[in-house]
Amino acid sequence: MKKLINDPSNVVAESVAGFALAHADLVRVSNDPLFIVRADAPVRGKVGIVSGGGSGHEPLHGGFVGPGMLDAAVPGPVFTSPTPDPILAATKAVDGGAGVLHIVKNYTGDVLNFETAADLALMEDIDVRSVITNDDVAVKDSLYTAGRRGVAGTVLVEKIAGAAAERLDDLATVARIAEKVNSFVRSMGVALTPCVVPHAGEPSFILAEDEIEIGIGIHGEPGRERITMEPADAIVDRLLGPILEDLPFDSGDEVLLFVNGMGGTPQIELYILFRRAAEVLAERGITVTRSLVGNYTTSLDMQGASISVLKLDAELTTLWDAPVQTSALRWGK
Amino acid sequence: MKKLINDPSNVVAESVAGFALAHADLVRVSNDPLFIVRADAPVRGKVGIVSGGGSGHEPLHGGFVGPGMLDAAVPGPVFTSPTPDPILAATKAVDGGAGVLHIVKNYTGDVLNFETAADLALMEDIDVRSVITNDDVAVKDSLYTAGRRGVAGTVLVEKIAGAAAERLDDLATVARIAEKVNSFVRSMGVALTPCVVPHAGEPSFILAEDEIEIGIGIHGEPGRERITMEPADAIVDRLLGPILEDLPFDSGDEVLLFVNGMGGTPQIELYILFRRAAEVLAERGITVTRSLVGNYTTSLDMQGASISVLKLDAELTTLWDAPVQTSALRWGK
Repeated sequence: MKKLINDPSNVVAESVAGFALAHADLVRVSNDPLFIVRADAPVRGKVGIVSGGGSGHEPLHGGFVGPGMLDAAVPGPVFTSPTPDPILAATKAVDGGAGVLHIVKNYTGDVLNFETAADLALMEDIDVRSVITNDDVAVKDSLYTAGRRGVAGTVLVEKIAGAAAERLDDLATVARIAEKVNSFVRSMGVALTPCVVPHAGEPSFILAEDEIEIGIGIHGEPGRERITMEPADAIVDRLLGPILEDLPFDSGDEVLLFVNGMGGTPQIELYILFRRAAEVLAERGITVTRSLVGNYTTSLDMQGASISVLKLDAELTTLWDAPVQTSALRWGK
Repeated sequence: MKKLINDPSNVVAESVAGFALAHADLVRVSNDPLFIVRADAPVRGKVGIVSGGGSGHEPLHGGFVGPGMLDAAVPGPVFTSPTPDPILAATKAVDGGAGVLHIVKNYTGDVLNFETAADLALMEDIDVRSVITNDDVAVKDSLYTAGRRGVAGTVLVEKIAGAAAERLDDLATVARIAEKVNSFVRSMGVALTPCVVPHAGEPSFILAEDEIEIGIGIHGEPGRERITMEPADAIVDRLLGPILEDLPFDSGDEVLLFVNGMGGTPQIELYILFRRAAEVLAERGITVTRSLVGNYTTSLDMQGASISVLKLDAELTTLWDAPVQTSALRWGK
């Protein structure tokens, strides 16, 4: 294993320290307990939004802390949920009196620990609501998960809910909008290679030289099937089919098309996927009105990608377009 | 070789097509000859800026086309210079009457083909100036290059010169500023793994399981030395030493610190490098006032990174901070 790290047990702490130095204009970091918080938190009268989970998916979630998106992110160890303690501390740090929304990817550890933290926060009179993301159509009841997994669609939930909070919508409204995004987005991924967890030092699973895994999870957990390598267009068709049938998406829909890299796949390949996905959507009468392409929900150094499609309406489009100032997503003033 | 591609000979065309679909708000694409141009080009009275070179370094250069940065990018085949024809066409497409600046990485093919295109443009009464970037301190007279190579520092040249052009500085001033950035920036990289060029289908070189290459070029061309894998902090020290001695950077300097991923290295590792680099600079009395971390000048799927340090003054800082609206770099309004 070759990685640009020092002691494997310090990977998260050192990376977050570097992140804090690079983005001191946007964030502050609490080291004990460990969480990343918007530099001006808490914002009085604004709903605070906290997300988090195991590390190894960067820029998710720390890269999305800043005005217009998250108020705090709680990074656990690599691929391991943070404990309730830092989640509670982050919740308190972002409470500006209007309550706090937890956005939690659907993995059993994350759900339990955020729930415990929410219960503790309620005992301190902080109003907490939780939204569980579960956009992955690949499998149900996977390793680490009861029900569907939360994957790259979580980025879209965080951006759009973040915009609602930023315009001072109340907690019930921000939670409703987050739920709506989650209910309108579907995702599925593919792995060409496994990832290597630093403290494990070896691949999380094995794929043959000509083999890929369709429906991969973002921790390398099993997907739907292993198949022999195919051209990119055929792989896109395999991912998009189940996504489009699931909601279902219909002719006349307007959508945001999101091609997400798993960390080790170059951008030149992600745009080849985008091209085919846009073509398939056009054939079905679905119009791509917004797009996102890049490494946003990764699985360390895994080669692969996922596709997410979000059905847009006027409310979601307006909130997607609203300004955002984070290290990983930034537009508007 | 597993890659998310279709026919290896269509990689660039299909990727650019996807890029055009994803970013239709920012760019237009000419397919024959192939170049990417800012959606509103030519901008009357503004110096046009054109860059380009072999593909495989994305987002460089297409990802930097848009207001505040490049007016056009000319992608050649993977790791192969574009011919003069598309460079000339791009130059004409962005000529708003104030002349055109070519920003060219110092590789023999790129330099020759941009020079030929500039000569042809001059014959059509377009005033063209060229700036050659050569920020890589690793080696002199490498494969493909006489003199030093142009690497990730090119992004900083493009951003800062782009801001000068956007505020309607004249051609001589924009060229002066681009030269100044190039003269103030130094870079050096490391590879943990080779990259695989799609039409070759095999690694561009071989590194042993415990071996890394210090001073790697962005096409996988040889660096300074191959050494046994070391902790990240030691690798940063090996890269930063030659960078800091070269300008030289001195106590009291303000700098932009740029940690660039080569394409296959996860973000969690890039921030570990940033942390150590910032620490070393602080020890030497050098203040990091601006930062950039991410995959901006890549080498396909290579695992590795480079560090660039740019000495800032008031003029460069103001231009760095100016708004930019491209798919890969975006801030301000």
